[in-house]
Amino acid sequence: MQPRALVGEFIGTAFLLAGVVGSGIMAERLSTDVGVVLLANAAATAGVLLVIIYMFGPVSGAHFNPVVTLAEAALGDRRWAEVVPYIVIQVAGGAFGTILANLMFDLDAVNVSTKARTGSHLWLAEIVATYGLVLVIFLLVRSGRTKLVAGAVASYIGAAYWFTASTSFANPAVTVARTLSDTFAGIEPASAPMFVAMQLAGAALAALTVRLLYPPART
Amino acid sequence: MQPRALVGEFIGTAFLLAGVVGSGIMAERLSTDVGVVLLANAAATAGVLLVIIYMFGPVSGAHFNPVVTLAEAALGDRRWAEVVPYIVIQVAGGAFGTILANLMFDLDAVNVSTKARTGSHLWLAEIVATYGLVLVIFLLVRSGRTKLVAGAVASYIGAAYWFTASTSFANPAVTVARTLSDTFAGIEPASAPMFVAMQLAGAALAALTVRLLYPPART
Amino acid sequence: MQPRALVGEFIGTAFLLAGVVGSGIMAERLSTDVGVVLLANAAATAGVLLVIIYMFGPVSGAHFNPVVTLAEAALGDRRWAEVVPYIVIQVAGGAFGTILANLMFDLDAVNVSTKARTGSHLWLAEIVATYGLVLVIFLLVRSGRTKLVAGAVASYIGAAYWFTASTSFANPAVTVARTLSDTFAGIEPASAPMFVAMQLAGAALAALTVRLLYPPART
Amino acid sequence: MQPRALVGEFIGTAFLLAGVVGSGIMAERLSTDVGVVLLANAAATAGVLLVIIYMFGPVSGAHFNPVVTLAEAALGDRRWAEVVPYIVIQVAGGAFGTILANLMFDLDAVNVSTKARTGSHLWLAEIVATYGLVLVIFLLVRSGRTKLVAGAVASYIGAAYWFTASTSFANPAVTVARTLSDTFAGIEPASAPMFVAMQLAGAALAALTVRLLYPPART
Repeated sequence: MQPRALVGEFIGTAFLLAGVVGSGIMAERLSTDVGVVLLANAAATAGVLLVIIYMFGPVSGAHFNPVVTLAEAALGDRRWAEVVPYIVIQVAGGAFGTILANLMFDLDAVNVSTKARTGSHLWLAEIVATYGLVLVIFLLVRSGRTKLVAGAVASYIGAAYWFTASTSFANPAVTVARTLSDTFAGIEPASAPMFVAMQLAGAALAALTVRLLYPPART
Repeated sequence: MQPRALVGEFIGTAFLLAGVVGSGIMAERLSTDVGVVLLANAAATAGVLLVIIYMFGPVSGAHFNPVVTLAEAALGDRRWAEVVPYIVIQVAGGAFGTILANLMFDLDAVNVSTKARTGSHLWLAEIVATYGLVLVIFLLVRSGRTKLVAGAVASYIGAAYWFTASTSFANPAVTVARTLSDTFAGIEPASAPMFVAMQLAGAALAALTVRLLYPPART
Repeated sequence: MQPRALVGEFIGTAFLLAGVVGSGIMAERLSTDVGVVLLANAAATAGVLLVIIYMFGPVSGAHFNPVVTLAEAALGDRRWAEVVPYIVIQVAGGAFGTILANLMFDLDAVNVSTKARTGSHLWLAEIVATYGLVLVIFLLVRSGRTKLVAGAVASYIGAAYWFTASTSFANPAVTVARTLSDTFAGIEPASAPMFVAMQLAGAALAALTVRLLYPPART
Repeated sequence: MQPRALVGEFIGTAFLLAGVVGSGIMAERLSTDVGVVLLANAAATAGVLLVIIYMFGPVSGAHFNPVVTLAEAALGDRRWAEVVPYIVIQVAGGAFGTILANLMFDLDAVNVSTKARTGSHLWLAEIVATYGLVLVIFLLVRSGRTKLVAGAVASYIGAAYWFTASTSFANPAVTVARTLSDTFAGIEPASAPMFVAMQLAGAALAALTVRLLYPPART
């Protein structure tokens, strides 16, 4: 693993969180219609995702998401030794991006979220959201269409903001980072562990589905 | 026909309905402006369509729609023996996706819609909607540009939500599945049969147009 | 010129107008925020444009617009003999599409618009709108990137709905057809001739710019 | 440097500013929900960016932005002698585009903005916004994917309108031009110099990051 891969994961995840958290703050300040707020938040997140995957695909693989890194290792496409540094730098980058968003909007660098996000229906939503995200990435990779991943992930998350009741966190690094801003995109720390657990479950189900559809019979 | 094709049709149609129904519920809860609700519903549907066609194109052909499967058989590109299993699994996947949406939003798994959608202008709209959908798919296939289908179908349906008075169901599996949620995207069972009939008519007209523009003179 | 080219121009222009007029009616009925109405109208129009250019590019060149056909002839890429039938069928298709939109929304087939759109600032806007549209099409064609035209035209018109004060008609067939619906997208017949004149002026300026940037020194 | 490159930069920057300023005026007039206004403004700007980069990429490199031209020279991809004429024509084109927008919306050709945009959080936002813009452009170029720049820049700026508190000017020519319209997109002349200074800082940081990730070890 090259150090530049870690640089890529750090900058990319920072932009992802600046995008998610910053657009939430901006939208919340400009509109009283929460539908309009989520439209802006979803569109901005999709736009950032497309760009960071384009930018850092050749540099780091453009994960920005611990469950993607874990799934890649589980599916045999990445060495397990690289998983921990990737996850550490993703979480660090995400925290940095949230702090940047807070500062750009004249808030304290860290202001811990008080927004509870809990309940079995939201946990189901995180399973579904993460299942879909991991599935789309690896079905495209397995079928030799890695070039489509950026557009697909952007479209998927933009849509999943709306169709999953949890607004589709689908990413443990994002979940941790979003505890650091008491704004539209925030999640209180107490709600984070179950979100992460459900994300791991969804990713595992997706990896199994990928194995089912593209069996590793290539030995 | 491989079983994995049926797995693909099931998962894809489930995501389609989770997307259509789920985003309708979310939007209805967040905004009182029905224009904003339909913007969100249309954008989320388009995003999901792009992704499921990308994902399952090489797996099952990515139909998720009985009239597409029927048109493909009618145009000689799929064996008739595959049509019934495809349609059965599409309807099952659609129902599963609607149930998932209901559960993610903390509603009863099945809550039958009471929303009447009837009248000759809506029936005309379903003919137009389905005509356009089937036409765009097969004109792209016939001209050797299958790669463009995902983006085209997403754009088309996103637009047709707005320009057809029926919000463009254009899919019998979707129509049946949407009877199972008494929310924004729902349709009462009594209104469903005429919608399906009009969709079949629109698809038949589209298949004839495809034959006119790309005559099967290749024998 | 093949008859199938005329079929393509007819169906495509019909869908364009069904999209423009239909989405305007739907949006106007769903929202009282005219900003939301124009967002929907612009997005639906862009979606339809992408799809009809994809569908009919290999069939007819996908003009759907008399000034595009005229510019193509002026730039030497189409025989003048084909211009009149193209324009006639574009206008007919546009009228048919508007009628379809009216009927889908339970209005009289033809209901002449009473919306005045006049004033020198709107005329300037139509020059700018059409200049940009013709310029983007032929700069892409001249540089061997015809494949990008569909996405570019969709993006351009979606944007021009907002940045030109006239909401960017930029198309004489569209202008004539929009006199036939007294709804959001309508234009009263008395305002149409100046719009068409400005569109011709904008297209002529664009053709000159194309010649300047890609001089026909290929003899 | 060919004169046609300067023609391209002039027309492209003019369309960019007509798009940014014009869509702001239109949106402000149509909606009282500032969230809806910024959605329209961001979408229209993204649409215009895609199109002008497509159009003028092969003509001038499609910069429309002094910091992009400067970064290209700093990274060794453009001769320094071309920088000044590029910047002059970009500023001239931007001013022309703003004047066009004012006139299309029936305002005085020039009406100097009175909107103060100042404060260290906005300056930070301009550093972040410009850093990301320059980074995405040159990471794509350095990795041989120049074709993706148009879509990436459009997505990035569309998102950055929302996630940077300054709505992402990220362009000195745009900043100067936006002083000329006392409307939604305007900025008072007194606020402009600090914005430009921050943009230069962000671009310099981005150029350093590009060097870090793609070292010029090619000698």
